[in-house]
Amino acid sequence: MRIDILSLFPAIAQAALAESILGKAQQRGLIEVRHRNIRDWATDKHRTTDDAPYGGGQGMVMKCEPMFAAVEELRTPAARVVLLSPGGHVFSQRVAEEYAALDHLILLCGHYEGVDQRVIDHLIDEELSIGDYVLTNGAIAAVVVVDAVARLLPGVLGDANSAADDSHSTGVLEHPQYTRPVEFRGWRVPEVLLGGHHAETAKWRRAEALAKTQRVRPDLLNQQPEQ
Amino acid sequence: MRIDILSLFPAIAQAALAESILGKAQQRGLIEVRHRNIRDWATDKHRTTDDAPYGGGQGMVMKCEPMFAAVEELRTPAARVVLLSPGGHVFSQRVAEEYAALDHLILLCGHYEGVDQRVIDHLIDEELSIGDYVLTNGAIAAVVVVDAVARLLPGVLGDANSAADDSHSTGVLEHPQYTRPVEFRGWRVPEVLLGGHHAETAKWRRAEALAKTQRVRPDLLNQQPEQ
Repeated sequence: MRIDILSLFPAIAQAALAESILGKAQQRGLIEVRHRNIRDWATDKHRTTDDAPYGGGQGMVMKCEPMFAAVEELRTPAARVVLLSPGGHVFSQRVAEEYAALDHLILLCGHYEGVDQRVIDHLIDEELSIGDYVLTNGAIAAVVVVDAVARLLPGVLGDANSAADDSHSTGVLEHPQYTRPVEFRGWRVPEVLLGGHHAETAKWRRAEALAKTQRVRPDLLNQQPEQ
Repeated sequence: MRIDILSLFPAIAQAALAESILGKAQQRGLIEVRHRNIRDWATDKHRTTDDAPYGGGQGMVMKCEPMFAAVEELRTPAARVVLLSPGGHVFSQRVAEEYAALDHLILLCGHYEGVDQRVIDHLIDEELSIGDYVLTNGAIAAVVVVDAVARLLPGVLGDANSAADDSHSTGVLEHPQYTRPVEFRGWRVPEVLLGGHHAETAKWRRAEALAKTQRVRPDLLNQQPEQ
């Protein structure tokens, strides 16, 4: 899979994705992430990428021309072009799974007060938000999307791990986990996990996962997907 | 405000937060972000931070001892200790505003399959999720939280910008923005924005913001906060 990240601060995503599991996945060729600077497609002397908003107001708006030129140069017939913006529909594990099946994803990162609406109306396939909060920079959101998508690709997590029983893959939050020591400051690991009874362990985990979801995120239980 | 990020990959957050607006905010002393490696609090010869889960299953679980030692060393009386985890309650602009009023925030980042439940039960103040998807590493989520919180601090965005009319600050998505040129490939900026009539511009923007919210995120209109 190839992912192009188009932003004004390529170093943000490049550095964040160079470490740990994502860094290894790129070294092993499981995913190709390219970091592009939108400014490289600005054609005027000062390489302008933003300007004041029509109608007044604070902040700057990202201009059409460099974004159109960049996407039109990088786009392949199979590419999905996604603008990261707090005004988009909300990213979820389901969207990550959908993107993980693509050959080519182009992530366009906004900055400042926003992006010229003609980019949204005529250039991109969709606007995506990683949550109901505002960031200084879409590049940070791009890191989140790349990480969530890449870990679903074959081989990225390795044999020892699996994405299948994560929170948000199963419709409920993940059950509690414990590791050694069996007792820490007087707090013991639940006995059921120490007995080696697989069926009882599985039953306890399922019940705990449901109880936690009911307590912390009852909304997830009310929107159970068709299964 | 001081923020401590405790993770196994301090370079991820450090690099991502060194750029752009957040980099400048740190240089100017508006926010102090410290990047700590949980491994530095592991005391055995191999500096172990994770181990296999009791009860079986894939992946590794982060151990209690280094996390307790790290947080107990860094914690101040005013500190809020937050574990980033897909099992937490959901981060939002409202939570960002709440955190921006704190003096000291400690962000504890999970990794692998999860964190020993005794950390959740006895060490932290709350578990926080940045959205309904799973990441390889809580450090990426920490970057999102720091960015969303820091931009609300006085002076960080500068005089020319404001966080007050953002999407998710007002309960609706932000209105469309346009900048020069007035016509691009035959697509013109709406006439109302060119006339210089402030009242008409404000009315158009409000109507467009509501229409977009209704189309993309009707759930936001149904959960309008008490105002």
